[in-house]
Formats: sequence, C-alpha cells, structure tokens
Amino acid sequence: MATAGKVIKCRAAVAWEPNAPLMMEEIEVAPPQEGEIRIKVVATGVCHTDLYHLFEGKDKRGFPTVLGHEGAGVVESVGPGVTDFKPGDKVIPLFLSQCGECKFCKCPKTNMCDCSWSSNYHDIMSDPTTRFTCRGQPILQFMGTSTFSEYTVINQIAVAKIVDDAPLDRVCLLGCGIATGYGAAVNTAGVTPGSVCAVFGLGAVGLAAVMGCKNAGASHIFAVDINEQIFEKAKIFGATDFLNPKAYNKPISEVLSEMTSGGVDFSLECVGNTEVMRTALESCIKGWGVSVLVGWTDVKDFSAKPIQLISGKTWKGSLFGGFKSKDSVPNLVCDYMTGKIKLDEFITHKMSLEQVNDFKKLKLFLKGVDKTKGMNLVLQFCLAKR
Amino acid sequence: MATAGKVIKCRAAVAWEPNAPLMMEEIEVAPPQEGEIRIKVVATGVCHTDLYHLFEGKDKRGFPTVLGHEGAGVVESVGPGVTDFKPGDKVIPLFLSQCGECKFCKCPKTNMCDCSWSSNYHDIMSDPTTRFTCRGQPILQFMGTSTFSEYTVINQIAVAKIVDDAPLDRVCLLGCGIATGYGAAVNTAGVTPGSVCAVFGLGAVGLAAVMGCKNAGASHIFAVDINEQIFEKAKIFGATDFLNPKAYNKPISEVLSEMTSGGVDFSLECVGNTEVMRTALESCIKGWGVSVLVGWTDVKDFSAKPIQLISGKTWKGSLFGGFKSKDSVPNLVCDYMTGKIKLDEFITHKMSLEQVNDFKKLKLFLKGVDKTKGMNLVLQFCLAKR
Repeated sequence: MATAGKVIKCRAAVAWEPNAPLMMEEIEVAPPQEGEIRIKVVATGVCHTDLYHLFEGKDKRGFPTVLGHEGAGVVESVGPGVTDFKPGDKVIPLFLSQCGECKFCKCPKTNMCDCSWSSNYHDIMSDPTTRFTCRGQPILQFMGTSTFSEYTVINQIAVAKIVDDAPLDRVCLLGCGIATGYGAAVNTAGVTPGSVCAVFGLGAVGLAAVMGCKNAGASHIFAVDINEQIFEKAKIFGATDFLNPKAYNKPISEVLSEMTSGGVDFSLECVGNTEVMRTALESCIKGWGVSVLVGWTDVKDFSAKPIQLISGKTWKGSLFGGFKSKDSVPNLVCDYMTGKIKLDEFITHKMSLEQVNDFKKLKLFLKGVDKTKGMNLVLQFCLAKR
Repeated sequence: MATAGKVIKCRAAVAWEPNAPLMMEEIEVAPPQEGEIRIKVVATGVCHTDLYHLFEGKDKRGFPTVLGHEGAGVVESVGPGVTDFKPGDKVIPLFLSQCGECKFCKCPKTNMCDCSWSSNYHDIMSDPTTRFTCRGQPILQFMGTSTFSEYTVINQIAVAKIVDDAPLDRVCLLGCGIATGYGAAVNTAGVTPGSVCAVFGLGAVGLAAVMGCKNAGASHIFAVDINEQIFEKAKIFGATDFLNPKAYNKPISEVLSEMTSGGVDFSLECVGNTEVMRTALESCIKGWGVSVLVGWTDVKDFSAKPIQLISGKTWKGSLFGGFKSKDSVPNLVCDYMTGKIKLDEFITHKMSLEQVNDFKKLKLFLKGVDKTKGMNLVLQFCLAKR
C-alpha cells in the first residue's frame, strides 16, 4: 500500500489518564519494525478489561494509552522478517501471543506464552517501545493491541490470520470475550457430555461459557444472574435452567445443591467477583466438581473453606479460555462461519469510534459488569464505517 | 471366640470433654449388629485430627468420645449379614468408608463415599447409635473408628481386610496419615515422571507425600519445613532439595520460582495452615502447576489472588489421598510388604495405651504440627503389648 514504510496519521481514542473520558485524537502510527505488522483496524468490541483499566486502573504508569483488545482488521504493511502475513490479509490481534518457542508454547497443556503482554505487562511493543505518538508524546499500547485506533502495530506472534470472507465486525469478538468464555467451558473445565453445569454471570463471557457447555454436550446448564432480563438470551446460547440468587432466601449454592442432588459437575465464574468465585466452588458436587475462574479482578483475594477442596473439588482458571491463540482463533472463525458457534447474538450496540466519548454509556457498561445490574451489553465500534 | 455375642468390657482412653486429658476407663463394647464387625485393636497411630478434635474441638456435641482412627487389629466377631470377614482376620479400620453402592463409590474419579463418617459427621455407627458405653453413658465413636480402645465396632463398609502376615504395629499407619500423603502425590496431584515437586511441612503426611513424589518418578523433590532437623529423614523418603523458609529474606515461593525457572510442577501443602496453602499455590509454575491441599483445618479460609488460577494453575485437594479405601488399603499393605513403600521409618515413639495420659507429649505433638516447631513426631500406641 502507498502508506507502507511511512508514518500514518489516524484517529484514535486516547486515554490520557485514569477515570477520565477517552479523547478522540490524531495520532502518529510508526511503520512496523522487525517482526511487526501494521494493521488497519476495522471493528472492535469493548471488553470489561479496557474499562477496568480506565476506571479502576489507579496506576498512572499505564497512561496515556490506547485501549482496545477485541479487534479485527486488515494488514496494511509488514516489517522486515515477516513472511506469514502480507498486506490485505484479514487478521485478529491477540492480547495473548503464541511465540511457538517458549516452554509454555511447546507444552500442549497451556496457552500462557512467555512473550505475551500478560507475562510482561509493559503495555508496549516487545522491543520495548511504542509505535504510537500523540502531540509529541509516546502513547502506550494497552495489552499490546490498542484496537481503539484506526491503525495499530503488533508483533507477528500476537496476530492471527483468518479466512478472507470473515465478517470483521463479528469475528472481532473472538479476540477476547467469546473465546475466553467458550474455551473456559470446553478447554479449562473440560465439560463432558451429559454433565450438569452452572454459569455465574451472563455477560458476553458468561453467555459464551453457556455456549461452550452446550457444545460440549452438557445435559443441564444453569444460568445464574441477578438480571433476569438476560435469561431469554441465555436460552439462545443453550441454557436450560435459570436462577436469580435474589429470588431465594438461602445461598444459591444450597439451591443448586438441592436441585442437582449434591451440586453441579462444572461451574464457571464469569463475573470477576471473589464472592461469586466462592459460591461457584461451593455449588460444585464433592468428589469431582470442577470450578473455573473466568472473570477477572485483582482487587481482592478469592477464598473458601479448605474442606471445599479436601472433599475432592478442583479449582481452576484460564486466560483466553486456554486457547493457544494463533493456532485457535482462525479455527474459531471457521466455527462461526460453519454455524458451530454464534457471534451475532452477542452484539447489542454498534457505534462509531467517535461515540466512545459517550462516557456515560461506558460507565453504565462497567457498572453492569460490576453485578449491580447484571451484564448484558456488548458495545462495538465499527471503525471503518465512517 | 468365646466373647462373640456378648458385651466386652475393656480399656479405652475416653475424651470426656474438650481440652482435658484423656481418661483410661473400662468401657462396655456391645456386640456387632447387622453388617458390623467387632475388632480387637492391636496398634494405633496418633493423628493430628484426633488431637485437633480434642484440643480445638470447641463443639461439646462431639464428647464424650473415644478418639483414634489409625488402627489395625483382628476381627473378634461379626454381626448378621457379614460374609466377607471372619474372626481372626487381620483388618484396618477406615474412617472413610467404601459402600460400593453410592454414586461416589461407583465413580472412578473419587473416594468420597456418601455413607462415610466424613459425609455425616455424627461420630456414631450408621444406624445411628454407638456401641460404646462407660459409667452408664453412651460414648461417641470418633470418626466411626475409635481405635484408642482395645475393642471397637465398625460397619463392614469401613473395614479393610489385609494379608495375614502384615505387622499390625506398622501397617496401622496406613489407616490415615501415610495413605493421605502418599495418595495426594500419586493420585490427586498425579505427579509425573521427571517433574519438579515441593512438599510443604514434613510431618508424617508430608514425608509420605515426599515418598509419593519419589515413587511417581519426580526428578526433584523440594522438602520445605522450618524444622531443619527433619531434613535428614526427608532424604530417606526421597527428597532431593531442602528449604527452610526462615533462612531466606524473601518469600519461599520466590526462592522456589528462581530455583526452578518459574515454579514447581506440583506442590503439596501438608501442614493445614492457610498461609502455607497460599504459598504452595504461589510456588507452582503458571500454565500447568498443580497444588494440592492435604493438611486439614477448618479455622480459617484459604485464599489467593485470582491471577494465580487465571494463569493456568490448578488447586486441588483430597481426603485419604484419593484412595478408595477398602480397595486400596490392602494393596498399600502389600506395597509395604514388598518394599515399595516405607512405614517403619515414620515411627518415632512406641507407648502403651496408658501413656496416652502423657498429655504434655500430646500437646507438644499438636504444637509441632501447628508449625511453630515443624512436625516430626508419630506417636504410636501398641494396645496389645501389655
């Protein structure tokens, strides 16, 4: 493309500081360096983690930054040494890389690539510098992806090439939330045919976990949320039973235990609330129950009574649903194209990038996932549609 | 035997109330009822759980009782309907039953029999009444076994028949501690050949866990305790590296992480301390590390940061090492007889039952396992040797 090798000026939503509105800015995006890919971002979802960083990220070192890690786009140009990608390829940026070389990539049991943003937390490229500047200042690349920008630069170990006919405004959701919830059920929990499952929290991640339980052959899938409005949607993804903890005068773990003769085989916590994590474990059957942490928080410790594990339950967790990212995302896109997994049904709002300034809506979204109102909103920016 | 069908008067150490010395008493042991077996106890170990109940059991409903659940003996007589046992059989009482009928017994993944003392906590026989009386009062049967008595009556689902030439004063330890630690490594953790392990707390359970790691083929076994005197003994069971957390000015999880390029593959907490449980999890490698709760406490919750699990670690636990009790204890006895597992090396003291009144020694033992002084004492009563 004509822009290859040159700095690109484009629009991005910059988070200058915590707990303040994102600002639409013109930023400069440097050309990709050795092993890097510059991507024209076409669509991006909004994930809780973006907003968590913005609203609860008290660490000023994480700013200024460009948020966004649930994107899809087209390769604009590639840096030296990049042979697996070419301009025009459709791609999904990956906040969890897969270098293929580290001991974690070489082990079939895990996806926790040692080169990943999640291992290093420096919010910058791997060399480590950023490719973004704005008003003369370097701008960090949140989670290494920064998809709230019209262009971004990403290390090739953190980019998945997908099929040409994939609709980017749908498959972008596979960059985080949907893969996370779906994989937590099919990979981390290892839901088995005929099993009884419970999913706590019916945001995008929880609904994807329901879909995972369903596709893994669960016979009963209890959908648990304090927002009953979302139960209809959960049904679409495969939930068979619906529980509002507020409708009972005893702990929901006891309710589930009574309804299932001792507890569920698999439970998935998709809220990011440590009390719900405890409840999810307590809702499992002794002997073989498996509970999975899917929701994220670093504010509090999770806890339980030792007998909960001594009695033979297992507590697990995963990042990105346990999927090895570069290997799996292209397959998940195919699963969507062939109807094995749903994506369209997750999308509730479509907005332009400028509407990111609708700070109130973002706050509402965050509030939603904080469980005071349940979770039922997936915002999506379609960057290309201006 | 001549005593069959009659009440037997014998000696027992009765715990009349919490936090008071055990009293040597003459008790009456009723004949076994339907499905029950009366056993002449020959030897018994002393387990932390006995003393925990005695010294920290604030619930007066658990008294008066006869403690002891690490015994071995000989069948004196059997009740109606008992066909698998006959007088003279050598047996080990089981605090964890295996009824063979419940959904847990039928599932190969767990040993958590639904008929067990541990499921019901009524410290009595299954019908539910006790077979013990003393001074006209019914006396509870702690953990359903009550081996601090010369005779006891146990449901046949909680008795394992063992080979005739087994030395009862050794194999009694397979009734709890040694099976618990050993099985936690080979069954619950599933230690793999070539793996790196860490065992926290080197009491009998911890030493047995070390032995399990060794027999499972671990290449490195870190033995962690604040009592360095026990390291020599840990070496006998297969430990290869020795760490005293007090010898470092940083968390022992960091020390382990540095020594093992990211953490151990398997860690086992054999203390029953919630802080050590956290440390054991933190000492595991991300991606595939497995930490197992083996030590028991119900005083505090265990806790950790969510990222510990989100990063791909697994937190498990087991009772009785995950062994299906009736099926496995006879095999463990054979493993001892053929030299596959050690038992002799665990025994530090032999005492008569009367010496149970050496209350000070018991207190010391309990203090030991409370980790202020490390753990290295296995008391054993040989009841028959008077």
